[in-house]
Amino acid sequence: MKALVYGGPGVKSWTDAPDPVILHPTDAVVQVDTTTICGTDLHILKGDVPAVQTGRILGHEGVGTVTEVGASVTSLAVGDRVIISCIKSCGHCANCAMGLFSHCLGDEGRSGIGWIFGHLIDGTQAEYVRVPYAENSLYKLPDGVPDTDAVMLSDILPTGFEIGVQYGQVKPGDVVAVIGAGPVGLAAIATAGLYGAATVVAIDRDTNRLEQSRQFGATDTVISGTGDWKQQVLALTDGAGVDVAIEAVGVPLTFTMATEIVRPGGHVANVGVHGKPVELHLEDLWIQNVTITTGLVNANTTRMLLKLVAQKKIPVDRLATHHFTFDQMLDAYDTFGRAAETKALKVVISRS
Amino acid sequence: MKALVYGGPGVKSWTDAPDPVILHPTDAVVQVDTTTICGTDLHILKGDVPAVQTGRILGHEGVGTVTEVGASVTSLAVGDRVIISCIKSCGHCANCAMGLFSHCLGDEGRSGIGWIFGHLIDGTQAEYVRVPYAENSLYKLPDGVPDTDAVMLSDILPTGFEIGVQYGQVKPGDVVAVIGAGPVGLAAIATAGLYGAATVVAIDRDTNRLEQSRQFGATDTVISGTGDWKQQVLALTDGAGVDVAIEAVGVPLTFTMATEIVRPGGHVANVGVHGKPVELHLEDLWIQNVTITTGLVNANTTRMLLKLVAQKKIPVDRLATHHFTFDQMLDAYDTFGRAAETKALKVVISRS
Repeated sequence: MKALVYGGPGVKSWTDAPDPVILHPTDAVVQVDTTTICGTDLHILKGDVPAVQTGRILGHEGVGTVTEVGASVTSLAVGDRVIISCIKSCGHCANCAMGLFSHCLGDEGRSGIGWIFGHLIDGTQAEYVRVPYAENSLYKLPDGVPDTDAVMLSDILPTGFEIGVQYGQVKPGDVVAVIGAGPVGLAAIATAGLYGAATVVAIDRDTNRLEQSRQFGATDTVISGTGDWKQQVLALTDGAGVDVAIEAVGVPLTFTMATEIVRPGGHVANVGVHGKPVELHLEDLWIQNVTITTGLVNANTTRMLLKLVAQKKIPVDRLATHHFTFDQMLDAYDTFGRAAETKALKVVISRS
Repeated sequence: MKALVYGGPGVKSWTDAPDPVILHPTDAVVQVDTTTICGTDLHILKGDVPAVQTGRILGHEGVGTVTEVGASVTSLAVGDRVIISCIKSCGHCANCAMGLFSHCLGDEGRSGIGWIFGHLIDGTQAEYVRVPYAENSLYKLPDGVPDTDAVMLSDILPTGFEIGVQYGQVKPGDVVAVIGAGPVGLAAIATAGLYGAATVVAIDRDTNRLEQSRQFGATDTVISGTGDWKQQVLALTDGAGVDVAIEAVGVPLTFTMATEIVRPGGHVANVGVHGKPVELHLEDLWIQNVTITTGLVNANTTRMLLKLVAQKKIPVDRLATHHFTFDQMLDAYDTFGRAAETKALKVVISRS
């Protein structure tokens, strides 16, 4: 088969790779019909994730068709259309039992980490992929949900919802600020209303993304980088700060911004993938009764979000801005890597 | 009357001060029968809390007898024995309505901050004190609870319980680590069992405090500052880390220690008063699904804790290690200021 293979920092190729096979009775093999590229893939290509070894097939998002199932798999069959979750879940360890699939203790890839595709085992930017713990990691797709919508359920939609909105404990009437209106930030914006957020403020440096954010449910937008961005945000509150600040960028500046706009008793939900430590101003925050959360997605809301997507309650179709076929994989990377210029949100790559 | 008056950084005196009077219909005046000294008072005397002005009477903990009530006060009467809470609560602002008394918007002292005694208005290290919002800030003391127990309910017991145990979301079976076995850390240790903690690990540099901690409910103790303290803590867990790490010191080192021993999906509850920023290792923590909380006590559990203290369910009597009378106030400060040497936990100062 063909696959996008990591060749060390800065090196990738769309090249021949061995077809995956069933290794364990709980596996399935899935023909990938649609995949996409995540900001994390770009981090890997920069060499920021040293656990990824040369020769690894990248990608942790995909929709496909089951082509083979292991001996113990009973709820999936060859021919089923499925969403491939970015998170493995053995379904029976102590962490899976509490819904903490992000830290599944199953030994596929590595015990204690849920994200293994395109990281510790071969991923989804390929014609076929082996899916461990298939019955807990694949979700049957109902008719009527196009692949280009469904692929947003592999990672970004549950990430924005679980790690942003749920961990942020958004509640009815809240003022929610989302810092960073990239795909995951937009996913948080699009789902904040599920818990009754009254005001959803998108904050970004990019005016195009701010315009887009209104299509996803932002009620207000603020351009960051300007001197009075903070005053503009506070003006949308009672003056004390936002109830929930969701960080969806992953750099020290934006994390600090989140801590500066949150109200006493409020929540900062960090969604961004960080590569550096940040200075936490505990000399101010110790007295503020704030809650700060971090997290890798558990993907334990995938079924629920799939129902909402199937009912067109979440405008995920607006996320797929650029379309490619598998043989254009490198072009897709190029377009996504220049997102500020190409205005790409998610690039979708399909078998045909 | 006599009172402990702040004279600027490094300066204090037990001296004459005007008797307090009723200023608002919701006030009461209380004769202070018993007070104590908090680590925060030492911070103030170092000049670390610039909002405290020269001439301020210090102290935010006390038990006393009501001597006068304002015109609107109906549930308290002259002669009532009361606990003076360290936190003001107007009882009708948006924050009080959600139990966030720590950020009461009432304009006594300053809107938005609950801790005003000995900070923004005159405090309890005095023969008499004016108590704003008396019906929400004073708690009638049942017979049989001695002042020396009751005074721990002004601040430290609710602080350790609310900001440590409750914010840390301790649940049945948890392994809870408390870093810092001073009075507030001991209050957290003494109340972690209320939510079913199975293992309570006290961590401190001071072997005397660790010995004391077992009397408050610590099941295990670890001396910090040694090379393998972290391994000793992890050995008390399944290897992944503690469920809840409570920081009760207030320096960068101990905060970082808390983040290093918490398990994926676990909680870090910061109770310590910090004077400096800390380096938060988000490059490691972003993927760990941890929750970090901070907070000033709300004192919204005072009634509940008072019942437990009245029933001798919490060994607060062990906190009062040294006893003084009002005319020995400066000696009490001296003993408390040299706590490592004097082995003082709380110094209790009484009218007679």
